[in-house]
Amino acid sequence: MSKIIGSSLKNIPWQDKPKGFNGPIWRHSENPIINRNPVNGVARIFNSAVVPYEGAFIGVFRGETINGRPHIYLGRSKDGLHWEFDEEKIKFFDEDGKPYQPLYAYDPRLVKVEDAYYIIWCGDFDGASIGLARTTDFKTFTRLENPFLPFNRNAVLFPRRINGKYVMLSRPSDNGHTQFGDIMLSQSPDLKYWGEHRLVMQKGGNGWWQSVKIGCGPAPIELDDGWLIFYHGVTGTCNGLVYSMSAAILDKDNPAKVLYRAGSFMLTPEEWYEERGFVPNVVFPCAALCDADTGRIAIYYGAADSYVAVAYTTLDETLNFIKEHNEVLPLDSTDGKI
Amino acid sequence: MSKIIGSSLKNIPWQDKPKGFNGPIWRHSENPIINRNPVNGVARIFNSAVVPYEGAFIGVFRGETINGRPHIYLGRSKDGLHWEFDEEKIKFFDEDGKPYQPLYAYDPRLVKVEDAYYIIWCGDFDGASIGLARTTDFKTFTRLENPFLPFNRNAVLFPRRINGKYVMLSRPSDNGHTQFGDIMLSQSPDLKYWGEHRLVMQKGGNGWWQSVKIGCGPAPIELDDGWLIFYHGVTGTCNGLVYSMSAAILDKDNPAKVLYRAGSFMLTPEEWYEERGFVPNVVFPCAALCDADTGRIAIYYGAADSYVAVAYTTLDETLNFIKEHNEVLPLDSTDGKI
Repeated sequence: MSKIIGSSLKNIPWQDKPKGFNGPIWRHSENPIINRNPVNGVARIFNSAVVPYEGAFIGVFRGETINGRPHIYLGRSKDGLHWEFDEEKIKFFDEDGKPYQPLYAYDPRLVKVEDAYYIIWCGDFDGASIGLARTTDFKTFTRLENPFLPFNRNAVLFPRRINGKYVMLSRPSDNGHTQFGDIMLSQSPDLKYWGEHRLVMQKGGNGWWQSVKIGCGPAPIELDDGWLIFYHGVTGTCNGLVYSMSAAILDKDNPAKVLYRAGSFMLTPEEWYEERGFVPNVVFPCAALCDADTGRIAIYYGAADSYVAVAYTTLDETLNFIKEHNEVLPLDSTDGKI
Repeated sequence: MSKIIGSSLKNIPWQDKPKGFNGPIWRHSENPIINRNPVNGVARIFNSAVVPYEGAFIGVFRGETINGRPHIYLGRSKDGLHWEFDEEKIKFFDEDGKPYQPLYAYDPRLVKVEDAYYIIWCGDFDGASIGLARTTDFKTFTRLENPFLPFNRNAVLFPRRINGKYVMLSRPSDNGHTQFGDIMLSQSPDLKYWGEHRLVMQKGGNGWWQSVKIGCGPAPIELDDGWLIFYHGVTGTCNGLVYSMSAAILDKDNPAKVLYRAGSFMLTPEEWYEERGFVPNVVFPCAALCDADTGRIAIYYGAADSYVAVAYTTLDETLNFIKEHNEVLPLDSTDGKI
């Protein structure tokens, strides 16, 4: 069976799978871990990302202010479950040290690549597009060039260079709530200029849960024989969209190729905090902590655009589910060069 | 007054402005210059681009086949007005010499940069996006990496590097007929990786003719004190979109900044070949020939997605019109870094 390539994380948040529960992902018993009005002036925190840091945990959080606009807030936690937030949003500066603040910023991801941490978000660039910033100390945050033209959402970096190049997954979109969307891959020698774009995987398939659009979630998790990605899939109903979560395995050397992909969701809105809220019926994964020793995985997901929740799985549970429900679409298995 | 920086082109197609005509752009008297069914199996040629070549003219043409799918055809002309076309669409190969044919390709532009000619088109990349190919002899055509993620249309290269970098204008869009669109700029050290994206100019303004979207047309024309661009602007009606044409002047060293921009159209559908056809009410400029000696400009434009037509202006006429109707929107005049 596959192994996670990474560090041990003995203090990973964890609960064993409840007896009698059959699904591949089980929820933390005290969800949601972040409730409404978590910070003065912030109505909701959701769709947020965390990493281990200095023996504890740190994260970047989508805070929706009481004027209804999202910004990124820094949070710290000893156990990964109880969080304290800065009252002020993160201040970004350009590479010359001048203020370069996003007009808005949402759905941040946080990935350590080599010696630095990268925040990737969706922000305004004459429409929704991807913003990118680097920090090494979580005190100063250097915003880099926007990697892509609009319109784009749900970008996440791979945690290391592949064939010498930084690799980013993203979901090209439009200027609205986007009734379509596939996962693409882009490569860069320097995080400034991007190219060699590839199609990774398309929405659709036999099931309807991912029939409208799909988008990546946490940073890809390196395995000995591939990359594990958790991603969201969206279906449409007469009363709006429903966001579920599942997973796939990408080729290790050429992650534009999908090796296995679950044709069914692993987690879908069922609990009150997923079904009720600012945007009902959303589970939206943005981060995953892993313990390479045990294969334990803790997934952080936004719930109903109102809360942060945690769910647990293991590498074995996830791989078994993916392979049991394997459904790779025709273009997924190609190198994605079109 | 400004001057065109470029070659003399004594054999530029030309007709003097008709007596009694007051507009800044006047049509060729024998329009359309390319009629329906111009090639066996091709129903319509339109939205196409030409350059001077070996004392005559050569061009890349959007040929809509009788199965209703567009490909790019090569055409040659002695006078720039009477054209002969290859019966087979252009064959593209990748940089390793393997076939790399676009699934479809439309609205090609053609720009000489240094010692090579570049074809830029809109093609399929899991949705509409930009394709790019290079040729030096119009016999072999090397397709390069797709410069951008989808969705994008109307890309055109500047005819020389600026500050050492290739510069491309484009119009990010969506997966449909796109009811929005502004002109953006991207930079590349090598035509493979692109970044330093900037907003150039936005749709809108006081007039409604460019209220839905705008997109670039011919390659920018270098002046001693700026870059002249002709572009299309689109308005909406109860019976569909109407495409008109106007012009702007961009900053010479930083073409993300607009210096002057016409707030009114210079040419709008009036003639039968512009009002009637597969897509009624379209004038869509894709190329401009210039004679630096006289300031004469011959604009090639698609008419009603059915024909190619030519119109004439001079640098002085165009600059006078732009400055008389100058309307630069607030973000147009910035460096476009957002």
